[in-house]
Amino acid sequence: MKSFGYAVESKTSALGPFHFDRREPGPKDVVVAIDYCGICHSDIHQARDEWGGSIYPMVPGHEIVGHVTAVGKDVTKFKVGDLAGVGVTVETCMACENCKAGEEQYCTKGMVGTYNAKDYAGNVTYGGYSDNVVAPEHYVHTISPKLDLAAVAPLLCAGITTYSPLRHWKVGAGKKVGVVGLGGLGHMGLKFAHSFGAHVVQFTTSENKIEDAKKLGADEVVISKDADAMAKHAGSFDFILDCVSAPHDINAYLGMLRLDGALCLVGLPEQPVATSPFALVTNRRSLSGSMIGGMRETQEMLDYCAEKNIVSDIELIGYDRLEEAYARVVKSDVKYRFVLDGKTLKK
Amino acid sequence: MKSFGYAVESKTSALGPFHFDRREPGPKDVVVAIDYCGICHSDIHQARDEWGGSIYPMVPGHEIVGHVTAVGKDVTKFKVGDLAGVGVTVETCMACENCKAGEEQYCTKGMVGTYNAKDYAGNVTYGGYSDNVVAPEHYVHTISPKLDLAAVAPLLCAGITTYSPLRHWKVGAGKKVGVVGLGGLGHMGLKFAHSFGAHVVQFTTSENKIEDAKKLGADEVVISKDADAMAKHAGSFDFILDCVSAPHDINAYLGMLRLDGALCLVGLPEQPVATSPFALVTNRRSLSGSMIGGMRETQEMLDYCAEKNIVSDIELIGYDRLEEAYARVVKSDVKYRFVLDGKTLKK
Repeated sequence: MKSFGYAVESKTSALGPFHFDRREPGPKDVVVAIDYCGICHSDIHQARDEWGGSIYPMVPGHEIVGHVTAVGKDVTKFKVGDLAGVGVTVETCMACENCKAGEEQYCTKGMVGTYNAKDYAGNVTYGGYSDNVVAPEHYVHTISPKLDLAAVAPLLCAGITTYSPLRHWKVGAGKKVGVVGLGGLGHMGLKFAHSFGAHVVQFTTSENKIEDAKKLGADEVVISKDADAMAKHAGSFDFILDCVSAPHDINAYLGMLRLDGALCLVGLPEQPVATSPFALVTNRRSLSGSMIGGMRETQEMLDYCAEKNIVSDIELIGYDRLEEAYARVVKSDVKYRFVLDGKTLKK
Repeated sequence: MKSFGYAVESKTSALGPFHFDRREPGPKDVVVAIDYCGICHSDIHQARDEWGGSIYPMVPGHEIVGHVTAVGKDVTKFKVGDLAGVGVTVETCMACENCKAGEEQYCTKGMVGTYNAKDYAGNVTYGGYSDNVVAPEHYVHTISPKLDLAAVAPLLCAGITTYSPLRHWKVGAGKKVGVVGLGGLGHMGLKFAHSFGAHVVQFTTSENKIEDAKKLGADEVVISKDADAMAKHAGSFDFILDCVSAPHDINAYLGMLRLDGALCLVGLPEQPVATSPFALVTNRRSLSGSMIGGMRETQEMLDYCAEKNIVSDIELIGYDRLEEAYARVVKSDVKYRFVLDGKTLKK
C-alpha cells in the first residue's frame, strides 16, 4: 500500500519527506487515515538510535488517531468513517500466558512496535508521522467523538503508560501518591491520579511549574531541590509514579514510601539506577517498572477519558516544525505534548 | 544487673571478655539465661563499624536462645525455667501504624536493636554473646523443646529474615522460586521455600555446594557463573529471594522474573545496586527489600519450625573460637551458621 510520511534515514539525519510501501491490508486489518500523531520522547530516542538496534529509514510515531478508510472482511469492530486510534503495539503472539491475560505488552514472543520493528512476517513497521497506518483490529481502539481528537492522540502512549500502573497499584481515595516530573508522561499521571481520588503530590525541579501543577490537579507541589520540603514527606507515600528519564536520585523518593509502598518507573533512564538496599529494606519498599498497557486496558482508559473529559494538554504543530519540536522536547520545553497535524503533511 | 560477655572495644579490636551492667528488669521484663547465640554476618558488620554509627564497647549477638530465670510481676507468657528466644528487636513504640499492624520491625519511631543501640530510656543495649539478656516479654518468644535448642538460635534472625518475605510474597505450591546464595540466610530460605511447596532453584557460585543444596531441598541448582544455565531460566520465576550481601549483578536475576515477578533483597550489599530500568519495565518486575519480621510472625515461624522439624544447620563452637569464626564467616566458610555454646563462656 503506497504511503507517505516523514522519516529519518540514519541516526544523525533530520526528518524529511519519505515515500514508502506498507503491507497490503488483510481480512482482519483496519486502515486508518491519520489525522493527528503525538510526538513521544521515545520517538527521539529511537530516531537517534539511543536505545540501539534502530531500523532505517524510520517513520516514528505511535500516538495515532484518525478515521477508518477501509476494513478487512473479518473486521467487526469498525466501519469506514469511524474514529480510531493506534498506540505502541501492532502485533503480539496472542498465545502466551501474558497475551492470554490481556497483557499483550509483555508478550513473551515479543510485541511488535508500531514503528522501528519487524512484524512476525518480516515486514518493517512504519509509524504515525504519515498519511495512514494498517493494523489488525485487535490493536486498533475506538475513540469517542466527545473529545478533542488532536488531544486524544497522546493518550495512546503517555495516557496508557501512566493509567496502567496507577490502576495496577490501586491508586484511589485515601491514598497518598507522588508524581515525579511534569512532562508528557507526568502531566497525564497527575490528571489520572487526581481523577482517581488520591491525594497527589507533584514533584518538579521547576518553580515555574507550580501553578500549572495545581491547575492540573496537584494537592501539593514540592520542588525536588528543596531538601527541607522533601524531608517533610519521609515515609508517607503509598505510591510514587516516576516519569523522569533523566538521571536522578531514586533513593530520595524511595525514602518517602511508607510500609509496602511502591515506586514505579515509567520514564526510562538510559543508565542503571543506583538503588540503596537499605532504602528498600526499610518499610519493605519496592522499585518497579511498567510499560504501556494491554489492549483491553487501553480501551478502558480511552473510555474513562471520554467519560471524565480527560485529554492531554498539547501544542498542535505542522510537519514543518518537526525538528524544532524534537529540540524542544529534549529541553522539556513543551506543555505538555506536541501533536502533528495531519493536514500539514504535504507530498 | 551484673552481666558478663564478649565485647569489642573499637572497630579494630578483637572480641574479649567484658563485665558490664544491664538495666534492672521491670514488671514486664523477662530475664533469659543464654544457652546459645548464633553469629550473624551483621554482628561482624557492626563490630567493625562497616555500617557506621557503632557504639563501643559492643556485645554483639541477636540470635539468642536460653531459659527464663526471672519474670516481672506483669509477665503472663513465661515462667522461670521456660525456654525462650530473643531476636533482633527489644523495643518499639507500639503506637505507630506499623507497630499496630504487627510489623514492629518497621516502627516509625525506630526499633531498638538487641545490641549496638540505645533504648528509648537511653540505656545502651548489649547482645547475646553473654550470660543473660533482659527484654520485655513482647520481644521474647516461646521455644518448643522438640527442637535442638542450639540449632534454633539462628531462626531468630536468619530464620525470620527469610520466612517473612517468602510468606509476604505468598510463596507456595505452583510457584517457581529462586534463592540466591547458600549461606546462613540462603540455606534457611531454601528450607522454607521447599517446605512451603514451591519449585525451588538454588543459585550459587560454588560447584561444591550443589549436593548440599539438593539435600536441603533444592529442585534445581544453577551455578550463577554459567551463562547458558542462567539463560534457560529467563522470564520464568515468580519470586527470587536474594541472600547475597557481596556485590553482584542484580539485573541477571531481574531478567529471570516473569510477569509481576518480584526479587527481594535480604542480604545487604553496602554499595548501591545498579538496577536496569529496562529490566524492571519488562514484565512489570519489582526489586524489593525485607527486614526480619514482626513479633507475631516470628512466633509463627518458630511454631512452624517446631511443627515441621526445621532448624538451622550449624557449627557449634566455644567462645575461644570467636575470632576464627568471624574470619570464616567473612570467607563464607561455614555450613551454615556458627552458634556459640553458652557453657564455654568463662569469667
